[in-house]
Formats: sequence, structure tokens, C-alpha cells
Amino acid sequence: MPKQESILIIGAGLCGSLLALRLGQRGFNVRVIEMRQDLRKVDISAGRSINLAFSNRGLKAIKMVGLESKVESLCIPMHGRMIHDKEGNTFLSNYSGRENESINSISRELLTALLLDEAEALDNVTIEFNKRSTKVDFEAKIGHFEDTISGDAFEVSADLIFGTDGAGSSLRKSYFQERKFLFSFSQNYLTHGYKELTIQPTKSGKFKAFKNALHIWPRGDFMIIALPNLNGSFTVTLFLSYETGDYNFNNLTTPEIVTEFFKKEFPDALDLMPNLVEEFFENPTAPLGTVKCFPWHYKGNSLLLGDSAHAIVPFYGQGMNASFEDVVEFDAFLDRHEGDWEATFKAFETHRKVDTDAIADLAIDNFHEMKDHIANPIFQEKRKIEMALEAEFPETYYSKYSLVTFKETIGYNEAMTIGRAQDKAILNMLSTQKIDPKENLKDQLKKVQEETKSILSEDTLTKY
Amino acid sequence: MPKQESILIIGAGLCGSLLALRLGQRGFNVRVIEMRQDLRKVDISAGRSINLAFSNRGLKAIKMVGLESKVESLCIPMHGRMIHDKEGNTFLSNYSGRENESINSISRELLTALLLDEAEALDNVTIEFNKRSTKVDFEAKIGHFEDTISGDAFEVSADLIFGTDGAGSSLRKSYFQERKFLFSFSQNYLTHGYKELTIQPTKSGKFKAFKNALHIWPRGDFMIIALPNLNGSFTVTLFLSYETGDYNFNNLTTPEIVTEFFKKEFPDALDLMPNLVEEFFENPTAPLGTVKCFPWHYKGNSLLLGDSAHAIVPFYGQGMNASFEDVVEFDAFLDRHEGDWEATFKAFETHRKVDTDAIADLAIDNFHEMKDHIANPIFQEKRKIEMALEAEFPETYYSKYSLVTFKETIGYNEAMTIGRAQDKAILNMLSTQKIDPKENLKDQLKKVQEETKSILSEDTLTKY
Repeated sequence: MPKQESILIIGAGLCGSLLALRLGQRGFNVRVIEMRQDLRKVDISAGRSINLAFSNRGLKAIKMVGLESKVESLCIPMHGRMIHDKEGNTFLSNYSGRENESINSISRELLTALLLDEAEALDNVTIEFNKRSTKVDFEAKIGHFEDTISGDAFEVSADLIFGTDGAGSSLRKSYFQERKFLFSFSQNYLTHGYKELTIQPTKSGKFKAFKNALHIWPRGDFMIIALPNLNGSFTVTLFLSYETGDYNFNNLTTPEIVTEFFKKEFPDALDLMPNLVEEFFENPTAPLGTVKCFPWHYKGNSLLLGDSAHAIVPFYGQGMNASFEDVVEFDAFLDRHEGDWEATFKAFETHRKVDTDAIADLAIDNFHEMKDHIANPIFQEKRKIEMALEAEFPETYYSKYSLVTFKETIGYNEAMTIGRAQDKAILNMLSTQKIDPKENLKDQLKKVQEETKSILSEDTLTKY
Repeated sequence: MPKQESILIIGAGLCGSLLALRLGQRGFNVRVIEMRQDLRKVDISAGRSINLAFSNRGLKAIKMVGLESKVESLCIPMHGRMIHDKEGNTFLSNYSGRENESINSISRELLTALLLDEAEALDNVTIEFNKRSTKVDFEAKIGHFEDTISGDAFEVSADLIFGTDGAGSSLRKSYFQERKFLFSFSQNYLTHGYKELTIQPTKSGKFKAFKNALHIWPRGDFMIIALPNLNGSFTVTLFLSYETGDYNFNNLTTPEIVTEFFKKEFPDALDLMPNLVEEFFENPTAPLGTVKCFPWHYKGNSLLLGDSAHAIVPFYGQGMNASFEDVVEFDAFLDRHEGDWEATFKAFETHRKVDTDAIADLAIDNFHEMKDHIANPIFQEKRKIEMALEAEFPETYYSKYSLVTFKETIGYNEAMTIGRAQDKAILNMLSTQKIDPKENLKDQLKKVQEETKSILSEDTLTKY
């Protein structure tokens, strides 16, 4: 039986559609309003499908709403990073030393469509498209919208308003502009932007490169990566500085220079991308930004969730997973403070903020790790030690990557704190020859554990 | 002879008036426009004079414009922190173990008035008041203003526009709103606010407490501080949470509760403040925010300087010093890239940003140190070791506080990096009994230097 409260959700992307489904399952009356057209009604050409990394934290949410088996069919497992050097040599660096731990490439469109279908199938959930939020009066609990087809303006009143409207959130902008409370806010851009390109499938629909990996061409100050799609293509992303370096987005202005750049830096990828030049000039160059803010709620009236509260750069493959985990955690707080919305919002955001801050910072760290460190000998040596430890002590040892990605029972902040201390411990012991990758694994584990513990305890005294 | 360029400076506070004076001395045509009334024409009642900490980095700027002796007469030296416990006991903790190192309390009004007088005395500098910047068209180099008395709107064209209009900068808002370039921006509020109060002088104009110290009443989660004024009064500032704790700004709503709070927590201060209750309810409660942004310039057209580029919380006493140091550093870049404004702006902000970020973070650290750590035994033991090292090895050893405050030849970022490593080294060695404050000072110095070096080199490997 539907509960009293009428809920307005602004934004029907991945987070909004999952939230609508969950709140619908819980019996609330939910009205979802989305700015874009219904992506289920749009013909998505094969080459333009965009994929995302989907892993354990996201899976928690999918299990919560009972869609595990449906989502599984959309997943392409990626066991590790396939690293491509300039000569076209490749080597696979697994994500984990444990068996059966991998991340997945999944289509944003197909996953969103599934969540929309499931939410809309509930009697108490409605979803409307082509209606843009122009402003949210979070004091009066009224959303102001514009129909993007007719141009008509209209208002929607609700008992509760959720902003799941992404990095450019209208609810967040209203918080910022209205100045009704002290609203901490930051938007920070990297010096690099990104552009999406494609490796098409073979004529028979097969993958032109190894399917079950995330491919990386790390080049120090820039890189390309490629993730597989169900149709046999790969979505390729170039991460490159706008201004600095011999080649950058500002000076890649002619077909000749673009081809020269790829021939020099990514020759094996260039061979797989006959449409490179057309795509390069057709597809937009987009910035890489991190958004943080606080508080996320206003009284018992409204709450930001997902990218609207914490947009992050894509380098840890955790953007969607973090947004989905928001919904899982919020769901748990709903049980604890049932009926008291302000208490629910406050307790949730206070608990959650430290973790979303952590994944934002980890994602920026990983930008440097991916484009640079993974091609660096001492990092490779560290990686080897950690893979061996994970394989030998699967219950005991988790690398930073594994803590963040595969250990969904701890929060991002704990994963970051332990993971960074472990990294520091191993790198320092390697550089001072205090650990030998050839010695007994039990001894290595003990050394890493002791050094990590010492680093963590030293950090405690000076932490504010 | 005046140079060709016409320069518009928005904001005639401390930073704007110093910049106007310096650019005027360099021969530029400078027009300064300020929102507020001319503070030289306002009768400032004794009790409301607001003071600031003035130290070595600020002094560099004052020396640059040749005002050393005039400024000296406005300064009240503060040799250390006078710490007041709940029983009214006090002890003085010097800022430095070196002789003659102290910071100064100085009146914002008197120092600004001096800079305005000196700037206005130049033929090529004009200063206008009561004119509010409403928007800056930084592409066309036009400032839009409103006369706050007549209400008339008008425009000012210039070759170069400087925004020295403080934490709420109009130029910075225009950067943010126009979205002409990727503008990283953050505003972050502490959970605490502040309120200014007064300890009046005795009837004969004498100080009611020791004149040459910064007084602190640290109470863990909150504190009051007091800085001396030339007229014998102290300006007292209460730093307190808005929401949490037994007493907070939200629940200090009656004279009785305010008096109870001060009687319980600050009894010796209460005795000196007969007007506490009136002032408490008359004076505003203000938030404590940090603003960071980047870039500060737009092409060769405009530049943010001072608080408009980097507003910080007041706990290191470096707000004005950092803004003044901006002008010193900018002045040096003017010589290096003379005539090429875009190159000057870019080189300056790239060099300077890392230091203003550092002092912003240090100021937040010091919030915790002042309200909490200075009353903590292990921090007091560290402080004793450092004072002894500074006294014995004045050329060699500088504590973090001294690096930031008294070693103006290095930047804030270097001061922070070395200072934090030293703090960590000493605290860890104290907690593990690896250093003994009673042992030979040469041995202590060696241990601190070696442990600091080791911490710095360990941090290098994992720094991104």
C-alpha cells in the first residue's frame, strides 16, 4: 500500500532510476522527471554506446532491488588491465590475485533502460521525460520545470524532493544560489580533458582486441583506454592535456597532426581505428571535473544523491558504483529513522560524506597511476608483490585497488586510509631493499603488515 | 612619467590599496573603485576597532613601498600566546625561541587609511568610494558599477582589471558565472562561526591584561582569543560551533545562558567584559570560510589578488600577510615579463597558487591546534623542545610556526611541507620515547633532523 509521502525525483539517470525503483519497492508514491528524452526510445548506433565499470559496490545495489540475473547478462567481465607499450607489446596486469575477482564493462544505456523499465512497472512510480528543472524552491518544496518540447513552464509540489540530476544538478545550483544556509561547494577541473572514440568490431561482429580486459596505453602525461561493448566494439577514451605537452587538445587541429600523434604514440590502436580522424573531429572534447558539496540535505525537504552530490573523475571506475552505494546506504538509514526525514537525511549524509570524499580523491590519484605509474618499474614490482600476497593469502591481504573495488563491506575512506599506508609501506621497503619479492611470502606479508601498522599509527598523532 | 596602460582596481581594502600604491609608484595610471565608504571619513569608535596579525611576510610588502617606519608606529608586538585555563591561571608560550621574533597586532582601519593616503598622494592614482561592482565583463575589459548613494549605474573601461574585492569578489563571481573557461572554485565553511567582543581599557586608558601577547582561552571544541589595540582595549573573538556541543551559537539565545557560558568557561575574561551581554546580542555572528580558485587571470585582461583569489580562516594570523605577499611576488613577475600581461599573470599565479593553497590548509590545521592541542601535554612537550632548539640553534632550527611566520624567504608550501614533517617526527619520537627533552640539545637536533628527513623522503615516493 502506497505511503503518504509524495516524492519528486529530479533526474532519471542511473542513480535516479535506481532510487525511484527502490523507493517504489518500499511503497512510496514517486514521480520522476528527467530533462533528456527517453533513452529507450532512441536508436543507439553501435559505435556510440558508452560503457562504464561496474563492480562489487554497484552490485550490492542491484542485489537490493533484485535485478542480479538481469544485470549479469549485460556485463562483460574485465580481469585486469591490458597494458600496451609504444612498440605494440602487451601484458595483462590482473586486478586481483584472488580468483574470480574482476570488474565489468556495462552499457550505460542498457542498464539505465533496465532500471527505468523496472521502476515504471510499479503502480506507484511515474517517469516523465523532456522536462528540464530550472530551479528548486527547496523551502516551499516546489520544483520548477520547463517542457523542452513545448517550452511551457510548470511547477511540481512534493513532500520530499531528491536531486539525482548529475554533475550539473539544478537542486545543487539552487542550494548554492539561494544562500539560505552555509553551503560548502567545490568544482575542480583537471588540466586534462577527454574524447571518446571507437574500435569497431570485425565484419563478423568479433572483438578486434582481447575482450576481457580494460586496455590501457599509458604514456606518462596522457593515455588512451578501451572498454569492450556487447556488440564487439570497444569504446576508446583519450585523456590528454588541453594546453601542455607536444600534443594537446588545443593543437590537435588537423587530420595530419591527429594521425601523426596516434601513429607515434598508439600505433597498434591506430591500426584498429580506421575512422579515427572523422570521430576525432566529430566527437566533443569534455572536461574532467570533481564536484564536492555539503550539506546535501535541506531540513526534511530535499536531498542530493549520486553525481549531483559528488561528481568524480572516471579513473577508479567507481562513479556509478559510488552513486549506487549511496542508494544502498540511504536505504539502510530509512529503516533507522523511519518517518523522521530530517534525521534520516542528516545521519545519512554525515555517514556517507567521508566515503564520497575519499573516492573522489582516490579517483584523482588513479589518474596519475594509470597514465604514468603502471609503466613505472617500482610500481610494477609493488604490484607483483601484492598479487602474490592476494593469491597466497586471499582472506588476509587486499591491495588498495582490491579494498576499493572488491571489498564492498568497508567504506571508501577506510579503503583509502589502509590502501595508501600499504602502498607507502611497500614502496618504501622496495626502495630501501627492506623487502625482497623473492623471499618467503609469509615474511613479506608480515613485513608489509608491520610497516603499514607503523605508518598508520604515526599518522594518527598528527591527524586533525 | 605615467605608462600607457590604464589600470582599474576593484576594491580598496588592504590588498587593493597596497596594489594601487605599488602600481602607482611604478608609474601606471591607476583608478581604484571601492564599494564601501571612505573609512578615513568615518568616526571609528574605540571599541569597534578590529585588529589583525601583521608579521614578516606583510612587512616585506611594507618595505617594498617604503612605509616601514610609519607602519611600525601602528604595531603592538605580541611575543607569544598567553594561555588562560579555566581556573584563570595563565602561562605565556613564546612564538619563537629566537630573540626579537614576534608578531604584531595592528588596526585594519589605521593601516588601510595609511595605504590609501599614500596611494592617493600620487598624481597617477585616483580612489573612488561608495561604488559597487555589479559585474565585470572581463572579455571586453569593462567593469559595471552602481553608485551606492545615487543608485546610478555606470561602466569603466580599462586596459587591465584587478580584482582585490575580497572573499565575495565580483570579478571572481563573473569568472564563475560566465563559464568562458574551466574555472576551478571552492568555498568551504567550518562548522564554527565567530563573534567579536571587547575588553575595554581601564578608565585611565590602560590595558586590563598583559599587552604584548595574543591571549587564548582554549577549550577543546571552542575558544576565545584577544588581541590588543592601541587605545588600551582588546578585541576578543569567540570561535564556537553553530550547532554542536552544550553551548553553541544556536542555543546562546538569552543573556542568562551567555553569562552562564562565560562564567563557566572563561571566568577571568568575563570579569574584564562588563558589556559582554550587550555586545553578544548586538554584534553579528559570522561564518568562517575558505575560498580557493584557479585560474586567477583571464588572458592579459584581468587578475584576482588577495582574498578574492584565496580567502582563508584567521587561525594562522596570515590573511593580510598572504595578500601583501601576493603583491610583492606579483611585483617581481612584472619585472620578468614586462609588457606581456598574459605571460606575467600566468607565471605569477602558477608560482603563487601552491603557496596560497598551503596557507589555507595550515590555517585550518591551526584552528584545531589553537582550540585544542595547545592545551594537550604532548603538544606542549613538543613546543618546549622546539623552543629550546630555536634558542640554541637560531640559524638552523625553525619550528613550523616559525617557518610560516618568521621565515619569509621561503614560500608557505615549503614551510608547510617541512613543518608538518618536523611535527610528525617530534610527536612520534616523543610518543615512542625516542627523544628525551632532557638530553643534550645537539643530540635532539640531530634526531629531529634525521627523522624529518626520513619522513620527507618516504613521502616523496607516494606523492602524486
